[in-house]
Amino acid sequence: MRPTPESHALTKPLVISIDAMGGDHGPPVVVPGVARACERLAGRDVRFLLHGDAARIEPELRRVETAACAAEVRHTASVVNMTDKPAYALRRSKGSSLWNAIESVKSGEADAVVSAGNTGALMAISRLVLRMLGGMDRPAIVASWPTNRGYSAVLDVGANVDSDARQLVQFAIMGAAFHRAVHGAARPTVGLLNVGVEDMKGHEEVREAHKLLSEAGLDIDYRGFVEGDDIAKGTVDVVVTDGFTGNVALKTAEGTARFISGLLKETLTSSLWAKLGALSAAPSLRRMRDRIDPRSINGGPLLGLNGIVVKSHGGTDAVGFANALKVAADLARSDYAAEIAANMERLSRVTAPVQATAV
Amino acid sequence: MRPTPESHALTKPLVISIDAMGGDHGPPVVVPGVARACERLAGRDVRFLLHGDAARIEPELRRVETAACAAEVRHTASVVNMTDKPAYALRRSKGSSLWNAIESVKSGEADAVVSAGNTGALMAISRLVLRMLGGMDRPAIVASWPTNRGYSAVLDVGANVDSDARQLVQFAIMGAAFHRAVHGAARPTVGLLNVGVEDMKGHEEVREAHKLLSEAGLDIDYRGFVEGDDIAKGTVDVVVTDGFTGNVALKTAEGTARFISGLLKETLTSSLWAKLGALSAAPSLRRMRDRIDPRSINGGPLLGLNGIVVKSHGGTDAVGFANALKVAADLARSDYAAEIAANMERLSRVTAPVQATAV
Repeated sequence: MRPTPESHALTKPLVISIDAMGGDHGPPVVVPGVARACERLAGRDVRFLLHGDAARIEPELRRVETAACAAEVRHTASVVNMTDKPAYALRRSKGSSLWNAIESVKSGEADAVVSAGNTGALMAISRLVLRMLGGMDRPAIVASWPTNRGYSAVLDVGANVDSDARQLVQFAIMGAAFHRAVHGAARPTVGLLNVGVEDMKGHEEVREAHKLLSEAGLDIDYRGFVEGDDIAKGTVDVVVTDGFTGNVALKTAEGTARFISGLLKETLTSSLWAKLGALSAAPSLRRMRDRIDPRSINGGPLLGLNGIVVKSHGGTDAVGFANALKVAADLARSDYAAEIAANMERLSRVTAPVQATAV
Repeated sequence: MRPTPESHALTKPLVISIDAMGGDHGPPVVVPGVARACERLAGRDVRFLLHGDAARIEPELRRVETAACAAEVRHTASVVNMTDKPAYALRRSKGSSLWNAIESVKSGEADAVVSAGNTGALMAISRLVLRMLGGMDRPAIVASWPTNRGYSAVLDVGANVDSDARQLVQFAIMGAAFHRAVHGAARPTVGLLNVGVEDMKGHEEVREAHKLLSEAGLDIDYRGFVEGDDIAKGTVDVVVTDGFTGNVALKTAEGTARFISGLLKETLTSSLWAKLGALSAAPSLRRMRDRIDPRSINGGPLLGLNGIVVKSHGGTDAVGFANALKVAADLARSDYAAEIAANMERLSRVTAPVQATAV
């Protein structure tokens, strides 16, 4: 992991490395995103390394001058395509914008990397180049989920399709450190997603993870099982689940939100009276829309790696990309790696026998 | 299974057996629910057997006279509590309102049973008394999910915590028959819930089930993998998943809907202009609310049993309970059991080798 935030803040600016060619749009979104991030991070000394085709990045930098002052272009001739399989990308993408952006973190030149590109390739190359944090089995993708009480961290939402009890406990450790760094809970509460809240509920992995989280002596405020409807309620700050269930839950929630927003739109244009009503309530409705704007939660870190890696949604715009950059900066400025290391040390004291019974 | 709907309709009225003591409210909700169901099912010859404490049911029947004409009380002295464990209920609840309501189906006196009571006990007693449909491994609970295109059937949403490939295929067979019987698709399309749509995505169970559904020659319109956001889109009529994922998806969607409805309410009362807007749009907003009213989708059958068993939400009101009664009537009048049997016969021709490789 990079230097601790305290020492760091005194010695040199924060550097964020960007795969400028990633995502559906590349430089036309990335560069204005950098400009917005500069504004939002004003006062924090941050610089950006833009890896990619200089001939496409530089015209954008001339257009958006506020970005230019804080950005440096690192030319690369090749890119990883959105459709490349991870195994293919691993073999063939050395020297691409994505690979070099990750390499900047490995070399210590950058404190974090952000990409809106191919998720599978980002994960595979990050694992190879950066390696896992000490003791971690697999990375996890964390989502920031708007709730009645602010934001909750939900993980894993898609890095894995199966997770055993030990991995679920690791997700809990990473999720708590992430929430404190990015969403600011002093002592995040953690719940394990299940189909009921009684101890005997669920399949073997969640019951075993529940036992470990309850008994392993981790520095985590574990609150036991939660159910699907607890996520939006904000019952806990961190919701832990396997990547299959988490991915389905996240996409189901997105689908439900879109369905209801669609109904609302249809409703508020269905008659003259409804249209007048919508007009009258417009400022309030706009505030509501902002509250669930997917751009405001864009930026899903790949936790568990020996370096900070943040995935932006491929289709996002400059506002969303700037948010992903802010997530990366928050993580890079935090104690998150040290916190994870301390809990992993505690976990290692108890997991040897657990692994044996699980096999 | 009971007689086929055609012969049935000619010979005797449909009889629905009810655990009148089940749910948070018991007779004060069940009896008005029966009255509403009588209205909604007008023209269809339906009778109801109300199992439970006659001293509590009869005053309600005197209050709601429209229910009295179609209902018959079967006194029982005991009930299954909402908190009783299934194993306890299996041993101790013989002669209770729930047990006797299920027995009425077993004896052939009733065509379906509806209960708003303890789900675990309903499932355990139903399995013991009615047994599984030929070839079925486990029951599944199906949810009717409002979508952009009407309603989709999602199963399993909580009867099981683990499901192997063969069970997922059985869920597909049952879900398609259910959709046709209750939501009326002539040839329901079926999708398998996954974290991506490519063949190689997901864990072993879903990939194996995908192969079986693609190759087993079932009379099912199988469309391949779908993702969480496809549910509310209505991409397919039937969404198949294991009970853990399905339960989390359903509750997550409910939580999301409640979260957004809460925001909307807050929004439309946040200022004088917003309140005026809400007033002006009120009739349209009311229609929208009806569209996602949980009562309109109350009634989740336990599919796969040798008899029709419908679970009502414990906290529902008379409108919701009437809907559960209508679901039971629709299933009882349909060809659903014959359809399932035909597909189970096709499945049995191919699953012997599959089981061998899966073990």
